Amino acid sequence: MKLIFATTNEDKIKEARYALGIEIEGTPLEIEEIQSLDPEKVALQKALDYYNQLQKPLFVEDVALTFHALGKLPGTYISDFVKNLQPEGLCELLRDKKDRSATALTTLVYMDSNGEPHIFTGEVKGYISTEPRGNNGFAFDFIFIPEDETRTFGEMTLEEKNKYSMRTRALKNMKAWLDTQE
Amino acid sequence: MKLIFATTNEDKIKEARYALGIEIEGTPLEIEEIQSLDPEKVALQKALDYYNQLQKPLFVEDVALTFHALGKLPGTYISDFVKNLQPEGLCELLRDKKDRSATALTTLVYMDSNGEPHIFTGEVKGYISTEPRGNNGFAFDFIFIPEDETRTFGEMTLEEKNKYSMRTRALKNMKAWLDTQE
Repeated sequence: MKLIFATTNEDKIKEARYALGIEIEGTPLEIEEIQSLDPEKVALQKALDYYNQLQKPLFVEDVALTFHALGKLPGTYISDFVKNLQPEGLCELLRDKKDRSATALTTLVYMDSNGEPHIFTGEVKGYISTEPRGNNGFAFDFIFIPEDETRTFGEMTLEEKNKYSMRTRALKNMKAWLDTQE
Repeated sequence: MKLIFATTNEDKIKEARYALGIEIEGTPLEIEEIQSLDPEKVALQKALDYYNQLQKPLFVEDVALTFHALGKLPGTYISDFVKNLQPEGLCELLRDKKDRSATALTTLVYMDSNGEPHIFTGEVKGYISTEPRGNNGFAFDFIFIPEDETRTFGEMTLEEKNKYSMRTRALKNMKAWLDTQE
């Protein structure tokens, strides 16, 4: 089995290969995401747009990190938050807040050969560290501590992170479904 | 002269009528904006998408409010920030920050009868109040104080606000150009 993961993010592709143990191919094509804090809406539109261009089965991912003290933010805008505030600035958004809890949600949309979308999600609850920690990973890995852990994703090996990762959970949900389709 | 302002926001339409003193018509059509902190990119794509649907001259607006202490944020995502944090929460984002300065930028794109886009901007520099004040206006009016003022937009009459408003400046730039085209 070989899947097309419609992303240019090599870190995400690496994690998907590791989680599923199958061949995963990226794509150089970049498309614009829509502006919305609804992860399913963003992921579905992205999947449809990629499928319309590539015209073959593929899947897309959208990740949303919600700080419960900030409504639905940063949510689907997490990558722009990381770029503009850096991990330090993200930790500081919650300074003086009692509630540092957060939910990381991965939404995957698999487009089948008929252009029908299938949605899979993976979620992990946790909290935001008071300062960035660790050297492994990318994006918000350095500030997110999963429930029942004391370390951030950035302080874990890829193997350890995969036990908790919302991305791994969503990928495994998708793979289990794909296996029933063969 | 009568213009189509491709928005469902009655407050924005009201301000445009007031600023230009001409007939302005909204549209019930809603389209998805793209996810980007580049105001010109967001506004241009919105203008093209509306034009492709309506096939007649129109203009769109995008407003970005940048807190200088937060990179380009909230920027083009300001309406989602207001919805999720309320004006109080926006003021609190800058708690403990020395720099409460902000820039409000309106980007207008006018699509002519050939489907060519023309860009106009209006900007006002100012700062974010420590708490929301005033009862007039909408969106971030209650927390934005223009330079050389002590009152928020929310504490001003529409007439007073229009002296400073980034939207009014952009609208007047567009109108001046339209007048040369007749």
